[in-house]
Amino acid sequence: MATIKDVAREAGVSIATVSRVINKSPKASKQSIEAVTNAMKQLGYRPNAAAKALVRQNTDTIGVLVGDVSDPFFGTLVKAVDVVAHQHGKHILIGNGYHNADDERRAIEHLINSRCDALVIHAKALTDEELINYANEVKGLVIINRHISAIAERCISLDNHKGAYLATEYLIRHGHSHIACIASNHDIEDASERVQGYLDALADNNISLSASYIEKATPDSEGGETAMINLITKSLPMTALVAYNDYMAAGALAVLQENGIQSPHKMSLVGFDDGLIARYTTPGLTTVRYPIQMMAEKAANLALALADEQHVDIEAMRFSPTLVRRGSVERLVSE
Amino acid sequence: MATIKDVAREAGVSIATVSRVINKSPKASKQSIEAVTNAMKQLGYRPNAAAKALVRQNTDTIGVLVGDVSDPFFGTLVKAVDVVAHQHGKHILIGNGYHNADDERRAIEHLINSRCDALVIHAKALTDEELINYANEVKGLVIINRHISAIAERCISLDNHKGAYLATEYLIRHGHSHIACIASNHDIEDASERVQGYLDALADNNISLSASYIEKATPDSEGGETAMINLITKSLPMTALVAYNDYMAAGALAVLQENGIQSPHKMSLVGFDDGLIARYTTPGLTTVRYPIQMMAEKAANLALALADEQHVDIEAMRFSPTLVRRGSVERLVSE
Repeated sequence: MATIKDVAREAGVSIATVSRVINKSPKASKQSIEAVTNAMKQLGYRPNAAAKALVRQNTDTIGVLVGDVSDPFFGTLVKAVDVVAHQHGKHILIGNGYHNADDERRAIEHLINSRCDALVIHAKALTDEELINYANEVKGLVIINRHISAIAERCISLDNHKGAYLATEYLIRHGHSHIACIASNHDIEDASERVQGYLDALADNNISLSASYIEKATPDSEGGETAMINLITKSLPMTALVAYNDYMAAGALAVLQENGIQSPHKMSLVGFDDGLIARYTTPGLTTVRYPIQMMAEKAANLALALADEQHVDIEAMRFSPTLVRRGSVERLVSE
Repeated sequence: MATIKDVAREAGVSIATVSRVINKSPKASKQSIEAVTNAMKQLGYRPNAAAKALVRQNTDTIGVLVGDVSDPFFGTLVKAVDVVAHQHGKHILIGNGYHNADDERRAIEHLINSRCDALVIHAKALTDEELINYANEVKGLVIINRHISAIAERCISLDNHKGAYLATEYLIRHGHSHIACIASNHDIEDASERVQGYLDALADNNISLSASYIEKATPDSEGGETAMINLITKSLPMTALVAYNDYMAAGALAVLQENGIQSPHKMSLVGFDDGLIARYTTPGLTTVRYPIQMMAEKAANLALALADEQHVDIEAMRFSPTLVRRGSVERLVSE
């Protein structure tokens, strides 16, 4: 493989000049740019990204940490960051944290050591303190889907409480009062905030339900099935339910179907996320839209601006969910 | 930020010694490893991944090119490569090619320039010639989901023909003979191979159908809807259909439902991929399983072995699809 020395010899310039051309230094003359570019082409020389990064002390790469890239929710997040990166002539480096502190830490360390100067971090297992330390170290680090007061201007999050409140209130406005809640058993703020939104909507409408109406399970379709089976077993007079996410709602729907409880006629339900599957269930899921694409674009642009030490207007760091109506909610008619 | 010079001063060793410790050179003494490690910790020094890559002339990163990481099919592929990378203490760098030659080329160039010595490439738009050139340049480059004879030992692919043949034959064995085919209008080998598998299964069973039974559209749920509408409009006496993928099958299912044509009772259908949504449709989709996780693991291990110039046994480069039975196929009873 051709080296930078070969290119310098071929172009009849110094190695320093080749380096200036490769690193797009304003000091490179038009003439030398032409000579070096031609020599590189002729010799099949590839400027080494590692060498370029060393000179510039940063890379053209945005680092992204997600829970698990094979989950379409994170796939959408990653793609949105990639689109922004593309617009800036940059690329992305991805780490999977699997909602596990060790994996999250190892992935962030790798992203920082790879000199990503802009970072979009979705971390659920690391403590606030650890994330604040990383944020202090890397000025272009932005947290997504989590709110940390001490670095609020670097956090893009969703109002989870409002989402669950909206879903519950929507069911109440459709005549339901015996509303169950299928919650996540993960110890993250999303889970507790959504349960609180459900409880507050009930309280604000003077509806009092026992704790039996809340079932916690893993936030996937199997968890949704388990929770639904437990709710049915308890023989509660429920006519509606809110689910932690669309997967849990889909699992609940499958159990309802197997037990001859038609949705929406005998059971109304509302999901959360408006993910890929919400359109494919029967009936289609009425759900709370999580604007992850918009949030991820905002996070990527903010990370790039902070890395570049640009002035950033602080606005709309906390996004609002909205309700998407499909076919899984029906007005309750007193029989 | 502390520099390598600061570390050398603090540890009381030369810069070259610090470099040897960072790059895990066998020449570094136990004593100097200890001194340097302590100094790095004390000063908060981060060994620069770019500098390390420059010394080693490769990175600890596997490059992956996919169509679009937000599609769960590619999310699964990327995760499988990440799991293998993790096992080898490596990380992954991802490029999106969007099935577009310019994007695919730009992404591969970036991965190569970033000195990824192992590459897993899912490219559909680039020509065989261009991919062969890249394969000649990078010895750890492996092609996934495409077969190129000249570099067959570096290609991991699926027997698409067999998959479509299996699906069609399964319907024939269930008494169907008027079987429509919802195909992809993308100009890639997957599309043509699957249509051929369908046609060959019909021919082998002495079933002759007009070309009207084949409808091409975009390989997504909207395309499936369009194709299904066109098939219904033609008033063909069809009782079953095979779809290019699960998304198209789900789109077809939605149109059938809207038109009061119950599946499986009035229409049996088989999807392809066994993707995320196949479990969530009603009825659940009987479909052809695309073992993308297993294939991606194989590709990642092969890429690492080739990059490392290890001897590689050539085996099972062409994977076989299998049929997954759910609820969308029913035996045809003559009425």
